[in-house]
Amino acid sequence: MRMADIINKKKSGKAHTQEEINFLAKGMLDGSIPDYQLSAWLMSVCFQGMTFDESAILTLEMAKSGDILDLSAIGDCIIDKHSTGGVGDKTTLIIVPLLAAAGMPVAKFSGRGLGFTGGTIDKLEAIPGFKTALANEEFISQVKNIGAAIASQTGNFAPADKKLYELRDVTATVNSIPLIASSVMSKKIAAGADIIVLDVKFGSGAFMKTGEQAVELAETMVEIGKKAGKTVCAVITSMEQPLGNAIGNGIEVAESIGALKNRGPGDLTDLCLYLASTGLLKAKKANSIEEAGKKLQKLIENGDAYEKFTEIVKAQGGDIDYIENPEKLAETQFSFTLAAEEAGYVQGLDALAVANAAKTLGTGRDKKDDPIDYRAGVILNKKPGDKVCKDEVLARILANSVEQGDKAGEILSQAFKLSKEPVTPPPLIISSI
Amino acid sequence: MRMADIINKKKSGKAHTQEEINFLAKGMLDGSIPDYQLSAWLMSVCFQGMTFDESAILTLEMAKSGDILDLSAIGDCIIDKHSTGGVGDKTTLIIVPLLAAAGMPVAKFSGRGLGFTGGTIDKLEAIPGFKTALANEEFISQVKNIGAAIASQTGNFAPADKKLYELRDVTATVNSIPLIASSVMSKKIAAGADIIVLDVKFGSGAFMKTGEQAVELAETMVEIGKKAGKTVCAVITSMEQPLGNAIGNGIEVAESIGALKNRGPGDLTDLCLYLASTGLLKAKKANSIEEAGKKLQKLIENGDAYEKFTEIVKAQGGDIDYIENPEKLAETQFSFTLAAEEAGYVQGLDALAVANAAKTLGTGRDKKDDPIDYRAGVILNKKPGDKVCKDEVLARILANSVEQGDKAGEILSQAFKLSKEPVTPPPLIISSI
Repeated sequence: MRMADIINKKKSGKAHTQEEINFLAKGMLDGSIPDYQLSAWLMSVCFQGMTFDESAILTLEMAKSGDILDLSAIGDCIIDKHSTGGVGDKTTLIIVPLLAAAGMPVAKFSGRGLGFTGGTIDKLEAIPGFKTALANEEFISQVKNIGAAIASQTGNFAPADKKLYELRDVTATVNSIPLIASSVMSKKIAAGADIIVLDVKFGSGAFMKTGEQAVELAETMVEIGKKAGKTVCAVITSMEQPLGNAIGNGIEVAESIGALKNRGPGDLTDLCLYLASTGLLKAKKANSIEEAGKKLQKLIENGDAYEKFTEIVKAQGGDIDYIENPEKLAETQFSFTLAAEEAGYVQGLDALAVANAAKTLGTGRDKKDDPIDYRAGVILNKKPGDKVCKDEVLARILANSVEQGDKAGEILSQAFKLSKEPVTPPPLIISSI
Repeated sequence: MRMADIINKKKSGKAHTQEEINFLAKGMLDGSIPDYQLSAWLMSVCFQGMTFDESAILTLEMAKSGDILDLSAIGDCIIDKHSTGGVGDKTTLIIVPLLAAAGMPVAKFSGRGLGFTGGTIDKLEAIPGFKTALANEEFISQVKNIGAAIASQTGNFAPADKKLYELRDVTATVNSIPLIASSVMSKKIAAGADIIVLDVKFGSGAFMKTGEQAVELAETMVEIGKKAGKTVCAVITSMEQPLGNAIGNGIEVAESIGALKNRGPGDLTDLCLYLASTGLLKAKKANSIEEAGKKLQKLIENGDAYEKFTEIVKAQGGDIDYIENPEKLAETQFSFTLAAEEAGYVQGLDALAVANAAKTLGTGRDKKDDPIDYRAGVILNKKPGDKVCKDEVLARILANSVEQGDKAGEILSQAFKLSKEPVTPPPLIISSI
């Protein structure tokens, strides 16, 4: 088998055989296929795509390239969730304790963020003492004992994907639906859960810019999961505007604590309940989304979900004082407000612009080892559909320097679009697969 | 400037700036751009193409990466020709002495062949003693003294193209019109001639499979040449069937000698006269193609063109005995004939199949250092349009082993398509640009 022939086959739009993908996966891991051939192949995939079958074979090969976590010691209905990422997306912090409170073991590996704000791991590290690097045995034992754990990936999960992703990053070949799907799913399969709930976002603040792309990505991931013997469901959600009101790291933890205490912003709570309900339904612990939703809502109202969150924080060494007094997660040197110049209704709130404002405050990083600001961020007081009076506060900016705060304010003022006429807020949950 | 951004720009279909291509050309030569990024960029060019401007800038950068031959010592109207290659294409052997006999200095660098039959250099080396590796000074001095030279490239011509071509070869990115055009023209510009006549072939036996592709390639090369200040013209010709009757190395030299003595097959003579006439017209040594053609035809009839060929052979050390007795160039151990199984007319003669038959006889090579058979080959007795009687000879096979001869015969028998009805032979010269 010659790699040049494999590249040429994909270049001309043909599908690879199982043998060809085995050859590719083996070669990318053991170095027998040079990077210059892999990157030409990756670019041809960006243009020609891959079938579900090809994507599934590649995914499994990448998953098998490293450890596959055996969660059988915990039980047989372990759940995991994954979001393709967006601005203000703190759903993991709410869904994990919520599902655990409902009796479903949740084994969640998360990542650090590159870009606007941190990833879930960065957000959790805003809680002093919180330990995210758990050895596989610690992780399994915590899920077994308290029903949930959220950890960074310390194991040797899908090293072939890691290798390929590093190459994609420097060759402008990240943006390909089958490659994104294979990358996500190879790590999810390696992480060992039985049920995987996917939140696939599209819009200004998401990697997928259109609903069509999001559906295609979701379908690809669901098909890959099925072929790997997993129970997978995907929810397509809008990321035109940020999720919830807080965009940062510590302040997103604080907002999540609020949501777990039944004081969350409507959009955030709705989405978390929907995603968690989908998981419950897939696990056959409810007969309908509505029934699951009611069950979960009760666990918020009776304090069980919040209680589970504190258990997780304690188990992972986090300072519970910051959970009980979440305002401590939002302590910055300076605070600014952005006020409306005239009255009206919020028509649009560009997620990408809000993210850029937050980034200016130091909430995200460009390179892997850059430091991030755990306290700074943007808190939105108004969202699309809201009525606004002249001089009313649209957003608050929490900054650790005046310069950063001023710059963030400028960017943020461009993010809001006001209208004289009343506005119906756009839907958040579009469909599920 | 980040290479990943440059790749992404081409991936999304945008044109590069002069600065970006300078960056690319510099990086591919000094190694500051790693191969894995270059190959991803090459694949994106295969899908998105390049404008004439981009192609011209890249071509000039690649030409400038090495020596550019200064032919001013010879004169100011030096001509060069290039064919994109085909089966039985021996036009260089005829056009070079023909134009030189017409008083035009011809400075021709040729290559060895990979694939079915040798390149012009291999064909000339079928003449014992013929020296193709001329130092630049020898080359220039020979063109000055006798009006023509045909040499292999010994100088450091377009090393950036060499580097890029090696990468293209192993990453399935050879097949891209702007990349092919830039590669050819970078070497032609480095070779220093003022007028460049291009023969761009399409069809079964050519690299370009359709007339549209050939026109696009020709237009790209002409535009690049213009932007480089050269006088360039291109002739689009059909390569559905082999050119002339001989397909091999020594036997193609023998056929060329025949053509120079006014005994060549019609298609070969017609094409050579047309290509040479185009050059004469571009050099303003004739007022029309017809006038140029008549002038050149006379140089064949009066023996001047043949005389010039013998001068070139002598100057480059070739054994003139083989030119005076060209049957010596076709001496093989065995000779076979392919006869018609029934009467009819030749409707089709697949160039690629004829090439495969010749390759079986050892006329070509797969790798750079493979030996080739200088005497073996196929001689066609019938071409499309010809009437054939039952048992009449369609072709002769000159082989140095019975096994090779048998295998070539089998392949060749599939190459001929006969018809009961009379057939009009397809046109050879399609258009010129």
